[in-house]
Amino acid sequence: MGRKYAIIGVGHVGATIAFSLVTQGLADELILIDKNQKKARAEQLDLQDATARLSSHPKIKIQDYSELVNTDILFVTAGNIHALDNASGNRWAEFEYTREIVKDIAPKIKNSGFNGVLIDTMNPCDAITQYLQKEIGLPNSRVLGTGTFLDTARMQRVVSEKFEVDPKNVSGFVYGEHGESQFVAWSTVTVNGLAINTLTSKLNLDLEELEASARSGGWDIHSGKGYTSFAIATCAIKLSLAILDDAKLMCPCSFYNAKYESYVGQPGIIGKNGVESLVTIPLLPEEEQKLAISAATIKEKFATL
Amino acid sequence: MGRKYAIIGVGHVGATIAFSLVTQGLADELILIDKNQKKARAEQLDLQDATARLSSHPKIKIQDYSELVNTDILFVTAGNIHALDNASGNRWAEFEYTREIVKDIAPKIKNSGFNGVLIDTMNPCDAITQYLQKEIGLPNSRVLGTGTFLDTARMQRVVSEKFEVDPKNVSGFVYGEHGESQFVAWSTVTVNGLAINTLTSKLNLDLEELEASARSGGWDIHSGKGYTSFAIATCAIKLSLAILDDAKLMCPCSFYNAKYESYVGQPGIIGKNGVESLVTIPLLPEEEQKLAISAATIKEKFATL
Amino acid sequence: MGRKYAIIGVGHVGATIAFSLVTQGLADELILIDKNQKKARAEQLDLQDATARLSSHPKIKIQDYSELVNTDILFVTAGNIHALDNASGNRWAEFEYTREIVKDIAPKIKNSGFNGVLIDTMNPCDAITQYLQKEIGLPNSRVLGTGTFLDTARMQRVVSEKFEVDPKNVSGFVYGEHGESQFVAWSTVTVNGLAINTLTSKLNLDLEELEASARSGGWDIHSGKGYTSFAIATCAIKLSLAILDDAKLMCPCSFYNAKYESYVGQPGIIGKNGVESLVTIPLLPEEEQKLAISAATIKEKFATL
Amino acid sequence: MGRKYAIIGVGHVGATIAFSLVTQGLADELILIDKNQKKARAEQLDLQDATARLSSHPKIKIQDYSELVNTDILFVTAGNIHALDNASGNRWAEFEYTREIVKDIAPKIKNSGFNGVLIDTMNPCDAITQYLQKEIGLPNSRVLGTGTFLDTARMQRVVSEKFEVDPKNVSGFVYGEHGESQFVAWSTVTVNGLAINTLTSKLNLDLEELEASARSGGWDIHSGKGYTSFAIATCAIKLSLAILDDAKLMCPCSFYNAKYESYVGQPGIIGKNGVESLVTIPLLPEEEQKLAISAATIKEKFATL
Repeated sequence: MGRKYAIIGVGHVGATIAFSLVTQGLADELILIDKNQKKARAEQLDLQDATARLSSHPKIKIQDYSELVNTDILFVTAGNIHALDNASGNRWAEFEYTREIVKDIAPKIKNSGFNGVLIDTMNPCDAITQYLQKEIGLPNSRVLGTGTFLDTARMQRVVSEKFEVDPKNVSGFVYGEHGESQFVAWSTVTVNGLAINTLTSKLNLDLEELEASARSGGWDIHSGKGYTSFAIATCAIKLSLAILDDAKLMCPCSFYNAKYESYVGQPGIIGKNGVESLVTIPLLPEEEQKLAISAATIKEKFATL
Repeated sequence: MGRKYAIIGVGHVGATIAFSLVTQGLADELILIDKNQKKARAEQLDLQDATARLSSHPKIKIQDYSELVNTDILFVTAGNIHALDNASGNRWAEFEYTREIVKDIAPKIKNSGFNGVLIDTMNPCDAITQYLQKEIGLPNSRVLGTGTFLDTARMQRVVSEKFEVDPKNVSGFVYGEHGESQFVAWSTVTVNGLAINTLTSKLNLDLEELEASARSGGWDIHSGKGYTSFAIATCAIKLSLAILDDAKLMCPCSFYNAKYESYVGQPGIIGKNGVESLVTIPLLPEEEQKLAISAATIKEKFATL
Repeated sequence: MGRKYAIIGVGHVGATIAFSLVTQGLADELILIDKNQKKARAEQLDLQDATARLSSHPKIKIQDYSELVNTDILFVTAGNIHALDNASGNRWAEFEYTREIVKDIAPKIKNSGFNGVLIDTMNPCDAITQYLQKEIGLPNSRVLGTGTFLDTARMQRVVSEKFEVDPKNVSGFVYGEHGESQFVAWSTVTVNGLAINTLTSKLNLDLEELEASARSGGWDIHSGKGYTSFAIATCAIKLSLAILDDAKLMCPCSFYNAKYESYVGQPGIIGKNGVESLVTIPLLPEEEQKLAISAATIKEKFATL
Repeated sequence: MGRKYAIIGVGHVGATIAFSLVTQGLADELILIDKNQKKARAEQLDLQDATARLSSHPKIKIQDYSELVNTDILFVTAGNIHALDNASGNRWAEFEYTREIVKDIAPKIKNSGFNGVLIDTMNPCDAITQYLQKEIGLPNSRVLGTGTFLDTARMQRVVSEKFEVDPKNVSGFVYGEHGESQFVAWSTVTVNGLAINTLTSKLNLDLEELEASARSGGWDIHSGKGYTSFAIATCAIKLSLAILDDAKLMCPCSFYNAKYESYVGQPGIIGKNGVESLVTIPLLPEEEQKLAISAATIKEKFATL
């Protein structure tokens, strides 16, 4: 009955997701799990203290994997952001750490009988999501990573600032790794309904500069607040609602692409089964090549696991 | 036009307030100010990155006191939570630090021409709110502290858990300092519409234990996550919405009580002018005494400024 | 997965509930059923036309009782408001009509295998809800009527206007029939935390006048707009969310009272099983008597079915 | 302070807008005006009865034009839907009626000193909005009609159903009159990021059929429920929030086009000043011609006023 959510890892991202779910009345039941029992308990209490001031009163439980059996949406947001402190913009720096986390939690998820949809925000997002899928054994469609859904939002922001419009006036996609080899597929980007390529000359736009700005967006935030949390949490929740609604909403995110034999960021249709299909948009040859390279990068790193 | 919010201090509390305002579509315009320019910029970016995924698109600006002139609601949430790390449950440990902050920001607020309502979450909440009021020179009613609004929510949670009901089934108030001398006015507390005093005997309830549990709630959270943020942010926002709506909503919070010549936590009516009136509920003599003592404690500390 | 709602009867109340569920993102799946196929289809289309402008995209289906098998919440809002046009304030005027509706829909609900919680807004609310429960055969707790939840909201409004405060500052209950024999249990009513009885003398309040004003509130609306819809829909949705959250929220509504062998409006605890328990608040002897009379009135009318 | 809304005409559309503003916490102050005093009062009461069950408590006033002076957003939703009952799909049937309404209300709006943004939903939308603008004397940008914002939503729904995706996966615009001469500019329409023209052959899509279906969507609803309300209210509110946020959101709606010397449905940028600019998207020659014809139709009808 109702919407049952669980979050494994209640660091900055996980806790922000939990806060949103509770304060926006989105969850009816919420399970918080963290390797740090005191942290999970503190977040539970802080959220429960808020419920006297909210119109909703979701059930919030902690540390119980057995609750996953009938959970609709499971966010996996574990990670050690401090692994990035000297990382020079490389999310692979978190890999060694997050791999160990997956080795710990994947069997617990599997044994719980979880059969909902898993949304992963850990980094390096693509490889670790694939690793989670493999270890848990759920169908590919039911294990997805936020991937370039966030990078696309950043691209939309960066472009929208240049044009002084709402980011929702900007459409198009960032493809590839949620990491250094990602790229903006500029051939897919429109502003106010017009292909950005038709606008660059008259506006003297430097797309490479915009792309660098979008790509480095996360690092600017990381250097200023020590982590990123608000946009990634918002993206993760949006995916979850599309799943619960069975919305068939198109979102770029990280899921398996058979052609590249790898998880990679690309547009997919999100519904009750997770990523229900790949949306194949014709890219320019150089974009296709970038995607192949990015996917190969992920695949290679995945193989080192 | 619309709702204009500002936040001075975008630490955990301020940033959580900002996140709520943006993701819940509550603010049309939001000004973030922090002594750490990079932090303010990082929060701005993280919020702006979210707006491509939200239905709203508030304007978010940073570091500009001149924007306060037509701001409706100003949250002051500056503070140094690490001042509390060895504080053994004493919010006065933050006083020295927050006093310096006020000396810095109060003239800037005053000079901005700000004429909205200021909601303070800094600690020690009551004294520092009074100090802010004095330094800025706004009417008492327009400068309030969250005070025991949060402690009351915690009391509601603690009691509701005992009775296994929604915290909203629990009414009543925590009075006094948002600190050690606070107390639950049990004579005001009802559960499911019944005075708690009539229920304690049959349920073998220990009210002192419940009160201790409510009072220490914040410290349990602090020790588990290093700070508290979710419930305090939720309380602060609820106050702000009652102001914007001119709701005449009764909330316990910290405002000036002429009888005690001090700010202190007590129920008031919240409307467009801030705290528009004090609600005087008959207390038991021992409760009246506790309130007098708590107010005197605040007044004394305030005098040391 | 997610929240599944159904509504039987998409007249003004049912359609307003549907609109709220869709626009506020509360439902993941919504089934609309009406004896008028074109009306159900029109509401479906009007709601679906809105989804391009909303952040959510719930599934909306029509006219299919088989969907009830895994529905969480079923609203029954059928009725013929025009039966009231010459009713001189008597909801029993709808009885003959709604009884026929129940005879038609109850077997269909029963045969569907519906096992969620049914919330009834039809009039005369108490008797028809009991009739629904009997015909469908679900446990008493899982079939409830909005009953005096709406009348209580009206009492809160009327009192709050007198005191110029937020209706949420007013607590207390309207008991009895959602109809003429209802009464405000003034001994339970508080304003700003103070018993209203202690405030009447100094304010020269006439409680009988206030009560008449609350009771006639619905008729004033009916005469002005031809029906009532907004408050009743809001009440019904609030009950549903308490059920989905398993909130254990105290609400006055219509459910079975063994003492009176009848459904009647009274405070209960709302959780995932519907009305999970009766809250017995000591009433004054004259209030107890009014409740007994009101319950007897309902019982008698029910017997005529 | 806060968001101040007013609505002139609280029929189905106006009342639905009011209900949304109140239940979603969007308005801090709301003014309802109707030629039928009892209707305005009934809607006010029905909304106020709901506020005891809502977390917000907006001020709701009625029948006072003087309140418009500092109103941010004014919806004009007056009209007589029964004028359409024998209209065979022609919104011009409402013209005679709504023109008289405008002659009545325009001077009152003008004299109130209203200086916010006016959003009109009356039919025939384009001509009547232009007439309102002329009579009130506000700048063109501050008087807009919902126009083809609703028709575009319907086109998105119709196309999305064909492709079994979320309507938000469909972009593109309906141009022209909110009436019979409107047209879908198929060259602007994409589904899942792909131009619909590239998809039609393989899917055996009949665009003319889809267009007819979108155009007649309102009539299907009208014939089934007697009016349309939910989608139009949702569209109107979305425009208002973009204005309050100063969002610079691109929306098709009805505003003045100097080239055609007429109001007409077309994409514009919505910000705090209303429609801040026209978005000129290259159309096919036949689409340009349809737009010219549709604008000429509106202009001609406008001239008959």
